[in-house]
Amino acid sequence: MSLVVQKYGGTSVADIERIRNVAKRVASTYDRGDDVVVILSAMAGVTDNLIQMAHEVTSSPERRELDVLLATGEQTTSALLAMMLQSMKYPAQSLLGYQAEVITDCSFGNARIVDIGAKRIKALLKDRNIVVVAGFQGCDPNGNITTLGRGGSDTSAVAIAATLKADVCEIYTDVDGVYTADPNICKKARKIDKISYDEMLNMASLGAKVLQIRSVGFAKKYNVPVHVRSSFNEEEGTMVVNENFGMEALIVTAVTHDKDQARITLKKVPDQPGVAEKIFSPIAESGIIVDMIIQNTRAGGQTDLTFTVPKADFAKALEIEAKIAKEIGAEDVFGDKNIAKVSVIGVGMKNHSGVATTMFGALARANINIMMISTSEIRISCVIEENYTELAVRVLHTAFGLDKEE
Amino acid sequence: MSLVVQKYGGTSVADIERIRNVAKRVASTYDRGDDVVVILSAMAGVTDNLIQMAHEVTSSPERRELDVLLATGEQTTSALLAMMLQSMKYPAQSLLGYQAEVITDCSFGNARIVDIGAKRIKALLKDRNIVVVAGFQGCDPNGNITTLGRGGSDTSAVAIAATLKADVCEIYTDVDGVYTADPNICKKARKIDKISYDEMLNMASLGAKVLQIRSVGFAKKYNVPVHVRSSFNEEEGTMVVNENFGMEALIVTAVTHDKDQARITLKKVPDQPGVAEKIFSPIAESGIIVDMIIQNTRAGGQTDLTFTVPKADFAKALEIEAKIAKEIGAEDVFGDKNIAKVSVIGVGMKNHSGVATTMFGALARANINIMMISTSEIRISCVIEENYTELAVRVLHTAFGLDKEE
Repeated sequence: MSLVVQKYGGTSVADIERIRNVAKRVASTYDRGDDVVVILSAMAGVTDNLIQMAHEVTSSPERRELDVLLATGEQTTSALLAMMLQSMKYPAQSLLGYQAEVITDCSFGNARIVDIGAKRIKALLKDRNIVVVAGFQGCDPNGNITTLGRGGSDTSAVAIAATLKADVCEIYTDVDGVYTADPNICKKARKIDKISYDEMLNMASLGAKVLQIRSVGFAKKYNVPVHVRSSFNEEEGTMVVNENFGMEALIVTAVTHDKDQARITLKKVPDQPGVAEKIFSPIAESGIIVDMIIQNTRAGGQTDLTFTVPKADFAKALEIEAKIAKEIGAEDVFGDKNIAKVSVIGVGMKNHSGVATTMFGALARANINIMMISTSEIRISCVIEENYTELAVRVLHTAFGLDKEE
Repeated sequence: MSLVVQKYGGTSVADIERIRNVAKRVASTYDRGDDVVVILSAMAGVTDNLIQMAHEVTSSPERRELDVLLATGEQTTSALLAMMLQSMKYPAQSLLGYQAEVITDCSFGNARIVDIGAKRIKALLKDRNIVVVAGFQGCDPNGNITTLGRGGSDTSAVAIAATLKADVCEIYTDVDGVYTADPNICKKARKIDKISYDEMLNMASLGAKVLQIRSVGFAKKYNVPVHVRSSFNEEEGTMVVNENFGMEALIVTAVTHDKDQARITLKKVPDQPGVAEKIFSPIAESGIIVDMIIQNTRAGGQTDLTFTVPKADFAKALEIEAKIAKEIGAEDVFGDKNIAKVSVIGVGMKNHSGVATTMFGALARANINIMMISTSEIRISCVIEENYTELAVRVLHTAFGLDKEE
């Protein structure tokens, strides 16, 4: 007998018929003799509709109240699934975030889980109930409703699985698992059977579409085996686990791309101590996340500094830097929205040299110019011209031997 | 400075624009220097939609889960109003049933309030916040969400007003107040300025359209002055108060009618001890509410017994009684759905004789046959043929001097 935590995303509970499908899956797990805790998202589109409604009220809805509003989405699906299971004669009960004691900090809209009591979950499981927990929501120590940010239900699921020491946390979604590249771009992309937490963490752009990246950090910290799979078929999906599992001897596990990038360059920045802080602290203060930073030293005590930001923040960042440039005496500021980032990711890199060479060579042979490079222990990323994104993904996928057999 | 509890019904918060209108009303009360607690219903139609959704899942949704589902309606409007007030720069916070410590029994779907803690409400008021409380919902001692039944937001409002010892509980709705008769039927109906709790309690059929009857019992018990008024204009509505307020010297305050009645007669019932129990306990056990009961003694140790039930329960009640009739040896069972009940209500009756005579005479002059009569201290009700309902209301309204001046 196992303890299984199953999380179903918005497309899996998009309407009553799909909730019925989820109920059947849950029931068949329960019939196997397993204990089941189900974590649910809101119906697909509902959270966006609620946000839209809040924006009809005011352009900047207060975050505490927005969380109260958004929490209704998961409350709805949880009640409906519990009802559905009961109508099928299964003992089931729904629990909201505060009832499951998902205690978070007070950061409304993007709260962090600090503790999960789970007394009621455990008591219900002991009596062989199916427990349905509303995902995405928790409560702060004062009893206010909080939400965990986009995709927060994944984090709810992994955190509850960690608390209960579940045997597996199954994340049900509308895709079959994690792929070696985006299958829409790369027809030869293969489903990955096993992937390490670290690789998954590095796949933000690709992986985040199937699994909230924060939840992976949680899974890694508490060593929760995560199974990403489809709720629309019976196929095994992708296991996200610790890397000491005898992984396939691949150097690179996946190729990812991210078009949501824009580049800003400050030219001829006086090369003085403290200048980088002056450039980046106003950016950070306005909540813009900087990804890559490259600094080239020039002659004459000057340097060129280039960094990337999300496309949505490009105009704001450029405006901020135009002001900064004047203050610090940089010669010019310019930017470029037509860029993309392609990355190769793999824990195998740790023990292999020549990965960078292979990557640069493959891009060069396809006449793709590399604008910026950044590396981590298990990832190499290149910024290229946006037009070349799909081509780059395909040539890298082939170059690292990831293409599926014809 | 007063403490004002304001409750806004579903039509008053039916969309964002109407919520904006509510926010303006609340703000103007606050600006007057009063403390304000607002109780909200769900948007008009939302509760019905949620029930509909539950019935797509199963014909008999489990009541605990149905309450979890239904509670989202008031959660939504409360968050939206709090946001709206904040966007208008008023300090406001929403509280759900459990956050406002509205403690109920465990009767899901029709819970009774047993206690209101209101610690958070009081703390928020102390800091001059506008407190927005989700109506209709509470929680049982185990922390499960409960709902208070149809129109339960009125009871939420009155109970919270009683707990806070509010100066007034304003019930905002889409009509101007309580009328001497249904204005759709009786063009000469007048708005009642003041009405006693007892009269209001006796006006279930007419009054319940503007105020949940249970809330009136609560108001009476705790002596909460209730002001029923429209959220769409600035007119004074109807005050529901204790009767020792120097009321107008009217004998009859209102004429009500109720078409939701059906009549069942058991003919030649053996007149033995215990027979009434045999007839009525299976009806009660199946949850059907019997209104009037009339028993006529016949010669020969037999009796005819007639009673009324809601039209929706007619078929079921008839079926039950057909079985009972055989068991107890009654000669026949028959029923009639084409009946209605008209009533005259007034605390003035206590000190006046001749009210019944006036009523029967007025109906007789209009050639309306009286099938059943029942009386209480402040009410006389007659069951008549349904077709005559409107006519009966009008002649009674005139007979008791209730018509407004032309």
